[in-house]
Amino acid sequence: MLLCDIGNTSYHFFDGKRSYKKNVLDFNPQEITQTVYFISVNAKIKQNISSLNNWIDLSVLVNMSSYYESMGVDRIFAIEATSNAIIVDAGSAITVDVVKEGKFLGGFIYPGLKAMSNTYKNISPALDYEFNFDLELNTLAKNSQDAISYGTLKLLHTEVLSYNLPVVLTGGDAKYLKKIFKQARVDDKLIFKGMQELIDKKL
Amino acid sequence: MLLCDIGNTSYHFFDGKRSYKKNVLDFNPQEITQTVYFISVNAKIKQNISSLNNWIDLSVLVNMSSYYESMGVDRIFAIEATSNAIIVDAGSAITVDVVKEGKFLGGFIYPGLKAMSNTYKNISPALDYEFNFDLELNTLAKNSQDAISYGTLKLLHTEVLSYNLPVVLTGGDAKYLKKIFKQARVDDKLIFKGMQELIDKKL
Repeated sequence: MLLCDIGNTSYHFFDGKRSYKKNVLDFNPQEITQTVYFISVNAKIKQNISSLNNWIDLSVLVNMSSYYESMGVDRIFAIEATSNAIIVDAGSAITVDVVKEGKFLGGFIYPGLKAMSNTYKNISPALDYEFNFDLELNTLAKNSQDAISYGTLKLLHTEVLSYNLPVVLTGGDAKYLKKIFKQARVDDKLIFKGMQELIDKKL
Repeated sequence: MLLCDIGNTSYHFFDGKRSYKKNVLDFNPQEITQTVYFISVNAKIKQNISSLNNWIDLSVLVNMSSYYESMGVDRIFAIEATSNAIIVDAGSAITVDVVKEGKFLGGFIYPGLKAMSNTYKNISPALDYEFNFDLELNTLAKNSQDAISYGTLKLLHTEVLSYNLPVVLTGGDAKYLKKIFKQARVDDKLIFKGMQELIDKKL
């Protein structure tokens, strides 16, 4: 049995011990013959694998009453695995969700780090810098690299901390955000935890 | 005599009464025969017009000691025209600069509204929405449009207001930001004011 969280850029698998990724552009889901419990925010792939009998969509088992219809299912599974925290899932997008005493209060969506970096670069070659994760967050920027780093990282940091909840980082870029969210817990299996809990409960 | 602020997408002219824009892609600066005092963050255009004798670069007259080398010259002229405010210049990028009691304290750069909107759309077609400027800024989002609007607008709003200074909005998208910065003053001539002051002082 495998778990798989399908995003906009990767299939993210978990075999119970190890997690690994496959690029959506070149991975063929028919390669896998064992049972795969999956969720997918990628509508195209979800459609493509709907004909494969060994790929089982867990999203149909979720009680949607706490959530909104167009909400990414990966966020829902991360929330289901959380009782009291602000979840920052840093992938192609950075989704932020607030769960207080077991109740989902809402969230927001910020572009992912790579997307933000590309956005600056596309606005002007003068803004083509890597982010400085060692940025002094309490000091306004006085050079271009810090100016875009502050614009991206400080604003996110302030908002997330304003909820006064434990911060849980997940997703491929959690390791970068950990540099600015120093007190946060990194949990790269959070979504898989939510998937496994639902399987244990309902299947 | 004309003033011209050249950005990444437009030539922005001011003739002393009226301001108007020309697209950088199809405007030919040789069309103008009168004297044009200009600043340019667009390195390519700056290079192209350096051979035109009636286009006079005002940036060489600025005392750069308060600023950093790679800083966009449009920001510098807006700051020069400001004594005590946080300036939000919303164009291709949103530059934010803090001037307290005549002293430039630093700033940051956020992507422009159009760039942010395109960024979300490119991450996923599920995030292809217009921003909701009527967003309730104190309430976490419970639908996709509000989730990206909150991610873009609320984070900027919180950061800008945290400086407890009068907010001055300028740039082409000032009219949109005015919807969330309700107390702000819109000044679409701020950069031209800085240019005119420098001309009066030094030329």
